[in-house]
Amino acid sequence: MITMSNRESIIKLKSIQNILINKQMDGCIISSPANQFWLCGFIFDGYIYIQPVGPAILFVKRPFNLKDDRAVFIRKQEQIPELLQEIKYPLPTRLMMETDYLSYNATIRLQKALKTHETDNISSDLRNLRMIKTTEELAQIKKSAELHTKVYKRIPSLYIKGMTDLELQIEIEREMRLHGSIGIFRSFGENMDIFMGSLLAGDNAQAASPFDYALGGEGISPILPLGANGSILKSGTTIMIDMAGNYRPYMDDMSRTFSIEQAPDTAYFAHEISIKIHNSIKSFAKPGTSCSDIYNTALEIVKENNLEAYFMGTGQQAKFIGHGVGLEINEPPVFTPRSKETLVAGMAIALEPKFVLPGIGAVGIENTYIVNENGLENITLCEEEMIILK
Amino acid sequence: MITMSNRESIIKLKSIQNILINKQMDGCIISSPANQFWLCGFIFDGYIYIQPVGPAILFVKRPFNLKDDRAVFIRKQEQIPELLQEIKYPLPTRLMMETDYLSYNATIRLQKALKTHETDNISSDLRNLRMIKTTEELAQIKKSAELHTKVYKRIPSLYIKGMTDLELQIEIEREMRLHGSIGIFRSFGENMDIFMGSLLAGDNAQAASPFDYALGGEGISPILPLGANGSILKSGTTIMIDMAGNYRPYMDDMSRTFSIEQAPDTAYFAHEISIKIHNSIKSFAKPGTSCSDIYNTALEIVKENNLEAYFMGTGQQAKFIGHGVGLEINEPPVFTPRSKETLVAGMAIALEPKFVLPGIGAVGIENTYIVNENGLENITLCEEEMIILK
Repeated sequence: MITMSNRESIIKLKSIQNILINKQMDGCIISSPANQFWLCGFIFDGYIYIQPVGPAILFVKRPFNLKDDRAVFIRKQEQIPELLQEIKYPLPTRLMMETDYLSYNATIRLQKALKTHETDNISSDLRNLRMIKTTEELAQIKKSAELHTKVYKRIPSLYIKGMTDLELQIEIEREMRLHGSIGIFRSFGENMDIFMGSLLAGDNAQAASPFDYALGGEGISPILPLGANGSILKSGTTIMIDMAGNYRPYMDDMSRTFSIEQAPDTAYFAHEISIKIHNSIKSFAKPGTSCSDIYNTALEIVKENNLEAYFMGTGQQAKFIGHGVGLEINEPPVFTPRSKETLVAGMAIALEPKFVLPGIGAVGIENTYIVNENGLENITLCEEEMIILK
Repeated sequence: MITMSNRESIIKLKSIQNILINKQMDGCIISSPANQFWLCGFIFDGYIYIQPVGPAILFVKRPFNLKDDRAVFIRKQEQIPELLQEIKYPLPTRLMMETDYLSYNATIRLQKALKTHETDNISSDLRNLRMIKTTEELAQIKKSAELHTKVYKRIPSLYIKGMTDLELQIEIEREMRLHGSIGIFRSFGENMDIFMGSLLAGDNAQAASPFDYALGGEGISPILPLGANGSILKSGTTIMIDMAGNYRPYMDDMSRTFSIEQAPDTAYFAHEISIKIHNSIKSFAKPGTSCSDIYNTALEIVKENNLEAYFMGTGQQAKFIGHGVGLEINEPPVFTPRSKETLVAGMAIALEPKFVLPGIGAVGIENTYIVNENGLENITLCEEEMIILK
C-alpha cells in the first residue's frame, strides 16, 4: 500500500488554505477521486471539508469502516451543517467546489445542503497545485515509467505474424496487468473515453475520433470509436503504441513505433524528425521556458522538413504536442501555440510529436520528462528507434 | 458496425419531444455518450438539439468528417444561437439539459451560450425512457449474454493451482477481450469506478469499498479500492465472478460462483438459497409486479434461512438485490425495499442475491432477465451450480 507522509499531506492542505484565504472564501469541498487521493492518499465516498485554518474534516459515506482520525460518518450531505455546528464550526457563506467535475445537480444539492449562496470553482486551482509534483509523486511516476518500459520491451515477443491490431493490443494489455497496471485510465473532462490506451496500425491512424487525444482510430464499437479496429497487421506498415502508463496512481505516458517487417524510408525519415524534435526541445527547455515556445520549436522543425500535412494527424490534426501527467493523463501544462504556462521544476510532462503517413501509419515517439532545475530529465528510457516486428 | 433503424430513431425522438411538450419546454440538449448513442447509434463530441417538433440538429465539434444529414459543424457551443437563427429556429427560453451528467461549469456555459434562463433536468427522463428496451436493444443484450456465457465456460481451463485472484482475473479479462468486450465498463453517476468487473476470492469479499456496487473488495491500489487484491486462491474458499457483460453496447450482467477444490457445506447451502430466490421470483414476477415486492420476497427467504447477517455483504451490506442493465450497468429499475417502480415488458434486469460467508467467500448467482408479457426470461444461460476449480 502506497501511503502519503503526514508532512506532505499538511503541505498540500496549507496550499489549498492559501487559495481560500487569497480568494476570501469560507471553505471548500473536495469529492473527486483524483483530488481526494492527491490530498489524503486514499479515496472514499464523501466530502473533504476544508476551512481557511485548522484541520480538514472528512465527511464519509462509504466505506463504513474508514480508519482516519479526521473521519465523521454521514448518510447524506444534508447532515453536514448540523455536524459543523456541533463542533462549533461556522457554516460557509462563500464556498468553493469542484464545479469542473461535479454534476450540476450534485453542485446544487451541496449548495442547498450547506445553505451557501455563493459558489466558486476550485477545480482549476487544484489542477494547478497538482501540476507541480512532490518528490514522492515523482518517484511513483518514475516507477511507473520503469514498468511501462519493461512491458514495451516484451512487445516483439508478443507479435505473431498474421495477427490483428486488436489481438496484439490484447496481449499487451495482459502484460500491463501482470506488471501491475490498475486497468482504469484516469483522464480529466468530457470526451476523454479510453480503455487501456491506444494502438494504431496503418491507415487506422488517420481515422478521426470524437475524443480529445493526440490521435484517433476507428475502434471496434460505435460506442467507443477510438484506437485499434481489428484489421490485420500488414507488412510495410507502422504501429503507434501509446498504451497507458498506469502502473502507479501517478502515471507516466510513453509511445513507441513498431513496423511490420521493413517500413518505407519515409516512415524512418519522419520518425527521426520526431526524435530530432525531442532532442531540440531538450537542448533548451528548463524552468522558465514557455510552453508555447516548445510547441513552436516543434512546428518549425516540422515545417523545415515539409511534414506539416502529416503532423499530429491528417484530416483532423491535434493542436498540441504534449501535456502534463500525474493522477490524470491530461494534466496541465498543455503544449499548444498559445499556451500561457511556463515550465516549473517538479512538473512531469509528456511530449508526443507524431506524424501520420497515408498508406503507412503513424510514427514518432512520446517521452515523459521531469522538469529539473537544469532541464528535462527523460524517465521513459526505452529504445527510441523504430523496432521491426517479424 | 451496429446501426440503428431509422424507424427506431424516429420513435425515440418522438418520446423525447413528448416530454418537452408535457413539461412545456422549448428544447433540450443531449451530449452524454450513453444518451447520444441511444438516440443516434453513434457518439460524437457535440450536442444533439431537440425541439418539441421537427428533426433534431447535431451540433458537431468532432469528428470533423461525421457523415449525417443532421450535422452542423461548430467549434464551440457559443455559435449555436447564431446557427439556430440562420435556419429560423427560435432560441429556447426553457431548456432541458442532462444536469445529472453535465458538470456544473459545462451546464452554466451552455445556459449562457443559449441565453436561456430556465434549466430543467432531462437526465432522469432519459433514464426512464431507456429503461424499456427496443427489440434491437434486447437482441444486443442477448448476444452479449451469449458471449458472456462462452467466456465463463472457459474459466475452469484458465485456473492454475497456486495462482492469485488477480492472475485468474487477468486471464478472464484477456478472454473477454478476445470475445469482443470493448473493455470500458459504463456506469452512471459518482462512486462507480470499476475496471472490467469484479472477482472476489475468500475473505476479500468482506472488504468494504467506497463504491456503490453489490460487493466490495480491497483492490490492488488505494486509488481503486475494489475487487481482487492479489491474494493466493486457497482450497476450500469460493470465488464470486462478476465480470462485465460488455460484448455489445447494450450489456448483460452475470455472476457465477466457483470454489477452489471442495467448499464447505455452508457455502453450498447459501448458494442454493440464492438459486431458490431466483426461482421464487421467476414464479410470480411479470409486468405489473412491484420491484419492492421482488426485493422483499428475496429478504423473506433469506430470513427463513437465518442468512440475514451474510446477505449482500457482512459489515457493509448493499440495500438492493438488482438493477436494470443497458448502455450503463446501473439503469433503472432498482430493486430495494422501497422501490417505486413496477416491472414493464421490455425491461432488462439483473438480479443478484448474494451471500458473503466469513472464512469462505461470496456465493450466489446473478442472472439477467428480460421482462416479457408472461414473466421473466433468463438470458444468462450458464450453469448455475457452484463449479469446482482444481
